[in-house]
Amino acid sequence: MIKRYRYGAPVNTEAAVIQIAESKGQTVFSERECEGKTAFGYEMEKEDRVYGLGEQMRGINKRGWIYESWNTDDPILTETRVSLYTSHNFIMVIGKNRSFGAFFDCGGKVVFDVGYTDPDVLTVTARDCNLYLIEGESALEIVQEFRGLIGTSYIPPKWAFGFGQSHWGYLNEGDIRTVAENYKACDMPLDMIYLDIDYMERFQDFTVDKKAFPDLKKLAADMKKENIRLIPIIDAAVKAEKGYSVYDEGIEKGYFCKNQKGEPYIVGVWPQDSVLPDVLNPAARKWFGSQYKVLMDEGIEGFWNDMNEPGIFYGEESMAAAVKTIEALVASGRTKKDFAEVQGAVFNLPNSMLDYGAFYHEKDGKRYCHAEVHNLFGYYMTRAAAEYFEERDPDKRFLMFSRSSYIGMHRYGGIWTGDNAAWWAHLLLNLKMLPSLDMCGFLFTGADLCGFGQNTTEDLALRWLALGIFTPLMRNHYNASRPQEYYVFKNKEAFRNLLGIRYSLLPYLYSEFVKSALRGQMLFKPLAFEYPQDGRAQTVEDQLCVGESIMIAPVYEQNAKGRYVYLPEEMKLIRMRAGDRYTQEVLPQGSHYIEVALDEVIFFLRKNRVMPLARPAKNVASLDEKNLTWLKFTDRPVTYEICRDDGFVKKNLERYIERVTVNSD
Amino acid sequence: MIKRYRYGAPVNTEAAVIQIAESKGQTVFSERECEGKTAFGYEMEKEDRVYGLGEQMRGINKRGWIYESWNTDDPILTETRVSLYTSHNFIMVIGKNRSFGAFFDCGGKVVFDVGYTDPDVLTVTARDCNLYLIEGESALEIVQEFRGLIGTSYIPPKWAFGFGQSHWGYLNEGDIRTVAENYKACDMPLDMIYLDIDYMERFQDFTVDKKAFPDLKKLAADMKKENIRLIPIIDAAVKAEKGYSVYDEGIEKGYFCKNQKGEPYIVGVWPQDSVLPDVLNPAARKWFGSQYKVLMDEGIEGFWNDMNEPGIFYGEESMAAAVKTIEALVASGRTKKDFAEVQGAVFNLPNSMLDYGAFYHEKDGKRYCHAEVHNLFGYYMTRAAAEYFEERDPDKRFLMFSRSSYIGMHRYGGIWTGDNAAWWAHLLLNLKMLPSLDMCGFLFTGADLCGFGQNTTEDLALRWLALGIFTPLMRNHYNASRPQEYYVFKNKEAFRNLLGIRYSLLPYLYSEFVKSALRGQMLFKPLAFEYPQDGRAQTVEDQLCVGESIMIAPVYEQNAKGRYVYLPEEMKLIRMRAGDRYTQEVLPQGSHYIEVALDEVIFFLRKNRVMPLARPAKNVASLDEKNLTWLKFTDRPVTYEICRDDGFVKKNLERYIERVTVNSD
Repeated sequence: MIKRYRYGAPVNTEAAVIQIAESKGQTVFSERECEGKTAFGYEMEKEDRVYGLGEQMRGINKRGWIYESWNTDDPILTETRVSLYTSHNFIMVIGKNRSFGAFFDCGGKVVFDVGYTDPDVLTVTARDCNLYLIEGESALEIVQEFRGLIGTSYIPPKWAFGFGQSHWGYLNEGDIRTVAENYKACDMPLDMIYLDIDYMERFQDFTVDKKAFPDLKKLAADMKKENIRLIPIIDAAVKAEKGYSVYDEGIEKGYFCKNQKGEPYIVGVWPQDSVLPDVLNPAARKWFGSQYKVLMDEGIEGFWNDMNEPGIFYGEESMAAAVKTIEALVASGRTKKDFAEVQGAVFNLPNSMLDYGAFYHEKDGKRYCHAEVHNLFGYYMTRAAAEYFEERDPDKRFLMFSRSSYIGMHRYGGIWTGDNAAWWAHLLLNLKMLPSLDMCGFLFTGADLCGFGQNTTEDLALRWLALGIFTPLMRNHYNASRPQEYYVFKNKEAFRNLLGIRYSLLPYLYSEFVKSALRGQMLFKPLAFEYPQDGRAQTVEDQLCVGESIMIAPVYEQNAKGRYVYLPEEMKLIRMRAGDRYTQEVLPQGSHYIEVALDEVIFFLRKNRVMPLARPAKNVASLDEKNLTWLKFTDRPVTYEICRDDGFVKKNLERYIERVTVNSD
Repeated sequence: MIKRYRYGAPVNTEAAVIQIAESKGQTVFSERECEGKTAFGYEMEKEDRVYGLGEQMRGINKRGWIYESWNTDDPILTETRVSLYTSHNFIMVIGKNRSFGAFFDCGGKVVFDVGYTDPDVLTVTARDCNLYLIEGESALEIVQEFRGLIGTSYIPPKWAFGFGQSHWGYLNEGDIRTVAENYKACDMPLDMIYLDIDYMERFQDFTVDKKAFPDLKKLAADMKKENIRLIPIIDAAVKAEKGYSVYDEGIEKGYFCKNQKGEPYIVGVWPQDSVLPDVLNPAARKWFGSQYKVLMDEGIEGFWNDMNEPGIFYGEESMAAAVKTIEALVASGRTKKDFAEVQGAVFNLPNSMLDYGAFYHEKDGKRYCHAEVHNLFGYYMTRAAAEYFEERDPDKRFLMFSRSSYIGMHRYGGIWTGDNAAWWAHLLLNLKMLPSLDMCGFLFTGADLCGFGQNTTEDLALRWLALGIFTPLMRNHYNASRPQEYYVFKNKEAFRNLLGIRYSLLPYLYSEFVKSALRGQMLFKPLAFEYPQDGRAQTVEDQLCVGESIMIAPVYEQNAKGRYVYLPEEMKLIRMRAGDRYTQEVLPQGSHYIEVALDEVIFFLRKNRVMPLARPAKNVASLDEKNLTWLKFTDRPVTYEICRDDGFVKKNLERYIERVTVNSD
């Protein structure tokens, strides 16, 4: 049962797809007004666990920290960060006596104090929001009800479940061809190569640098012959330069965000002075989405949207203040003496509230200050593209994922989990984010494998890959100085085999993904959700159930030779060195220390479950899904639902789900 | 057996206390010249483990990362950091076929590539160094031999093993008295309150702000009546201001580091323009050390030395370059257009090689560019103080610890492990640093409990305290906005009891500390060292043996209800809620999942070992060491050596170690 309560005058985020009449009266929260906001309080019991919030720091159980929904471009993802690139305002309290979910649907900042100020009190602070309250018996039930409210999750084309290589630093066609050749020469699978901002003409969206990429269409076609797709990046901001058609046209039509005087608001991003398309305005959104055509006409079938928090290096207001400060210091000869002021001017420049409070959007006939709808920008930018895709070809799935998002965007694309680093802690964080994202509808997700920032190491690359082969979006992306394409490492055979395992798992992973999307279920489930009566399972934060048949437990510590694994029930350990080379061993319920070599993947087959396994393949197109092996842990026939669509079809996917009965060993 | 090899013209660091004749010929390393440096290569076997490096990031086993000895003031301690506040150039390779230790005794930068570039190769790069090579049968044997080379570790007065509270933000006498009163009112133990830089008159070393602290002598005396000692900070840099006697005198005597023209080199630290005492020059060092007198005459018996990497916010050279850049931009109207240059000027200012290469020291009649001896600065600053203490009272121990250090300094003082953060990862890092520091002679160490930077939480404070009660230096220190004195939290009883446990453990911890110092042994030992034949023990990175009788295994994950513990042999689990409230349970060899509540401490008594336990106390002075309880896990009488000195005596401490025979249960 879902109830909706309204506070103030919330913007219509279009996160929900079901209209729910407004309720009045007492919610589960105590409510008090505080500086124009509402503080929603809830006294937690000692054993209550708190889940949700999607892409956020810390554990699967969110208790014990404070989180702020405020989409932020800042890549130093340490434990005490409170805001990341996205806002996913769905939270669940799961307790012995009471369990509920709450979605604070709000375009501006929301603060979730989950036992930070007082270990026993949850306080959510928001203004102008719709609060959806979901009562339920179990975490899985509450999630499924919530997912019904927010609509079916995005399903990408099947080829997007392959492995993709990315690097901010591939500068030209030659670099791209080299990557493809090296993967091929090392006999390693590859389905995608990503283009970062360097493919553009001076960082201008929807342009191609003709010197670096003289014939993108031919390059894309050549790659596609090898079953490799090129996936270009699109940034949120549009370079402010007369003569650049996207800018000129947007200016003419008035489609950019404006300052109080009604002039386009200037922000600084990669192309320096830029403007932001007002994607909340349907006409502007349609126009911005239609720009993707330029690249699609060259044969492009997928994109990633970036810098759409929106991340800004400076804005009109903050830059004016900084320049003024510095010029005054120089004029009065105080540059050295008061250098701290220069430092302040520099440090306060990016992502400043001075700027976020100084420009405006049009939505539903109303003008909104950006700060009120800040968290919706990435969502609507991605929606712009998705609506164009739908218009261009309503029967075909395209790849789309974004850095910034808000609940609702999960219907239009996936997300990657932002600019992480080559830290072992971020491997574990990757694991912990997965179920939290699933709760919020974001099924097509993954982290930059090996780490995006900072230099990686071969062991970290292998251990992270052993998790990455299970994540729907599987991409190696980096900006570090040390190369990390999987072919650069010493133990090439290990990387080749692990990459191959991904493809062997695809019949299972794809089927589980599609079913989870269509049925509003979670693909990655905490043990606490699957085994709610098991006290030990409730605290396990480094193992996950993936789909209906398996549990994963990756190694995430350097120099570890293995790890502890808790089995809530008897399971079959699968130890895999390659998609066609593995051992099986039944282990009893309880704790186990399991050795795992760097070139191995382990996972666990649950009791009375089966999973299909294909031969390793070099890309999704060449995957042999006819000749499947079945991993089984059952003494009786089991029915498995496998999804066998063509990988592109968009409508009525349910009809491609076949029920297969698998006999016992 | 220790051999010494010389490369280039090394500075005499005085790290070693034994003269070893120079050897010639082949070492265990392959050696090649590379840009004026020597690269020492060693092909590691797959199972070789690498230890040492003292205060550094990552695991106890250092394999798989690159580390640079270059003392650095930068508080963002993430996994990919390569340099922290100290340089501890001792490294050990422990393998099945060969084990050895190597000390690269060198004042400048040393790089340790421990399987980072190639997973199987160790490469150390240095120039102008003495290389001491120690062959041995076991890790513990190699460490003990090395510790013999570098001399006996510093032993502080016994009161310094109590608990101390610190905060960068106690502004005046009232703040200090409030802290003392609050601890007393909450019935929580306290032995020290630390004074951070705000006690000084405008950040001038060896001065007191008379407005904030009108009578420091009386304050110190009042506190001492309560058995609380005040521990002021001393910074490395001396404010450059005429009329400030320390500056005037140092200038007159020529005791500050000079630029190429022979003028005092200006660096910016807390007091703005400052100069650095040339502590490498014996006359200047003696002079600087004698300055501590000013505070000792007020009744001060201990200090902490800070900013002695030396950390500099700017220097003559870097600031001149920055100002020039900015003024040129302003003059040409390019402030906004080329704001990236302003940013560069700001970001490159602190701790710049421009500055470290531009000033000079005098040592042993030779002039050294700072960059050649950079890593020795903190060591010699602390030595300055220690030599003055010795001169002032050769029979009394004073408290001294430093942020920056180098091997050799362990004879003169302890270290705290720098500006950590309120991250769970730093709790575990605290644990991992302990044995590495012990290998390098630094026994009196500890981390800022709860975390120095960033806001802590009550559960982190409790879990960290449960480790902190075992660390010789036990201090809660912070600069975060959220108060973290232990009396501010909700569950005061838990904090009171855990603090009390520290005092109950003191007869054991102090005895083990003194014995470790006198005998050149480790206080904190990895399981791999104590159980070298146990393959599982070799990989355990989150448990430590502390002294001869116990093993610790703290909980370091948020929301965990317990943890896995590996017992290399049968042990007795001690579960403590207070120093006089505990249970005992014998557990068999192997893996165990052990529940640990937030208000509990667990540790493990080893087989055939005993440990003394006192009643909880409110400070070291009131500890009743006559009436001890003995925790025992033995079926026969065991002899334990307990140290019972007066807590101050400095010479011949060995004579206070009593052999006590304890009967079995």
